[in-house]
Amino acid sequence: MRLLRVGEVGRERPLVEIGGVTYDASSVGDFDPAFWAGGGPALLAGRVAAGELAPVDAAGQRIGAPVAHPSAIICIGQNYAAHAAESGAEPPSEPIVFLKTPNTIAGPNDDVVIPRGSLRSDWEVELALVIGRPAWRCADPAEAAACIGGYLVANDLSEREWQLERSGGQWSKGKCVPGYLPLGPYVVTADEYDPADRRLQSWVNGDPRQDSRTADMIFSPAELVHDLSQYMRLEAGDIISTGTPQGVALSGRFAYLSPGDVVELAVDGLGTQRQRVVAEEV
Amino acid sequence: MRLLRVGEVGRERPLVEIGGVTYDASSVGDFDPAFWAGGGPALLAGRVAAGELAPVDAAGQRIGAPVAHPSAIICIGQNYAAHAAESGAEPPSEPIVFLKTPNTIAGPNDDVVIPRGSLRSDWEVELALVIGRPAWRCADPAEAAACIGGYLVANDLSEREWQLERSGGQWSKGKCVPGYLPLGPYVVTADEYDPADRRLQSWVNGDPRQDSRTADMIFSPAELVHDLSQYMRLEAGDIISTGTPQGVALSGRFAYLSPGDVVELAVDGLGTQRQRVVAEEV
Repeated sequence: MRLLRVGEVGRERPLVEIGGVTYDASSVGDFDPAFWAGGGPALLAGRVAAGELAPVDAAGQRIGAPVAHPSAIICIGQNYAAHAAESGAEPPSEPIVFLKTPNTIAGPNDDVVIPRGSLRSDWEVELALVIGRPAWRCADPAEAAACIGGYLVANDLSEREWQLERSGGQWSKGKCVPGYLPLGPYVVTADEYDPADRRLQSWVNGDPRQDSRTADMIFSPAELVHDLSQYMRLEAGDIISTGTPQGVALSGRFAYLSPGDVVELAVDGLGTQRQRVVAEEV
Repeated sequence: MRLLRVGEVGRERPLVEIGGVTYDASSVGDFDPAFWAGGGPALLAGRVAAGELAPVDAAGQRIGAPVAHPSAIICIGQNYAAHAAESGAEPPSEPIVFLKTPNTIAGPNDDVVIPRGSLRSDWEVELALVIGRPAWRCADPAEAAACIGGYLVANDLSEREWQLERSGGQWSKGKCVPGYLPLGPYVVTADEYDPADRRLQSWVNGDPRQDSRTADMIFSPAELVHDLSQYMRLEAGDIISTGTPQGVALSGRFAYLSPGDVVELAVDGLGTQRQRVVAEEV
């Protein structure tokens, strides 16, 4: 099952795609924490099977982020060995955790607005997941895996000067620019997606940047949920973005983003994103 | 005006205290982002003046956190010169930012539950503020000050091993234990509170730990909101906790918290907190 949301910013309508047909999911509710906590995917499957949902044609509409109002966005740093190396760090022995604010979420094809004065905005293609049921102190990765509701593409956009030089080494200051977390185009529910060995790619103006596989992750999605749940309670609807592979501008091999650039991202089985980079209007 | 919430966990009722009388504020709504975005304090003042709210007696009821469902909790590190020194760090030249998840929020007198296996839980009395209107790229601290809705006491409880040794130096991993952010007992609206030179204190089992004044802050509340707004959009209802003064266990001068301990905190003009420390039930 695929979950997506279409329409204007802040007025998106939830849709579900099952068996190649797209249905209006509004009667079950938006894809927010209550949806996940209430077993939303099973409810949707039941209503589609009973013929209770109307097919819709979503062609031509803006695609929004496929999740709404997560209580937290939890990100993992340096979870691919080659990316850790290009960032000048040893591979971590335990997951490195930082947070983004929920108002960083944007649609997968929305413009990326670089704030005035910012010179070092960087792309990060990532496999993200949405928590389907609360996780606290999971006994093992298998128990943690059962708390994963689905998977989606994330671009964990980062302002490197703000991240690394303006906050005593605490990264969140460069991770919370409004719109710096394009999500989607859709969530694939966990029952239909194996994250074990998937290709992730990014491009800037058509030129390849990142090209790796989730098999190169240091900690798998289930291992991350297991680890995080030892330290914090993960809530239904929360987003975890599992880290980015090598090939970002921070490596020194590529220029940072500038107005006029086009960023594209793809994760095998989860669709593609395409963002125009624009300057903040003064 | 004081804003408070009383009742069982998750079922708190909003109350407002004006002129020494407490009224039921439920008809205006809970103290969540929509309350602040909609000018809630002015609405409450108008209804009290018009005699439209019923006085209530809240005696004997549990006090909850005086805010509900913030989109983000933004914390400041090392914002008192003497605390930075005891942590082994130079005073920062710019505010150090990290985030806590909203499910860390607890009532001011709720038990603090130390997770199994945790050995280094530490107290941090702080002056916190709630954002009254969105702040993005404020021109100066005066403009930022107008975005502050009110002030309250926070205990930014921290698990030092998880904060400092388990996440590559990124602090949030030790800042997000469920319940590790007691807030309240109430919010004093910004029109009635000058944060410039207020005494902050904490005690463990009646023995003094922290005793400082906000005049020793490196960055004032308005300077913090001004700075943060250059990097992230602060939303109505968001919480900013402005950092803790010297006198925490991390200094090496005091033992970390253990089950059976009692932590007390006070900020001049904002009330007191009292928490029993208990072990997690297995």
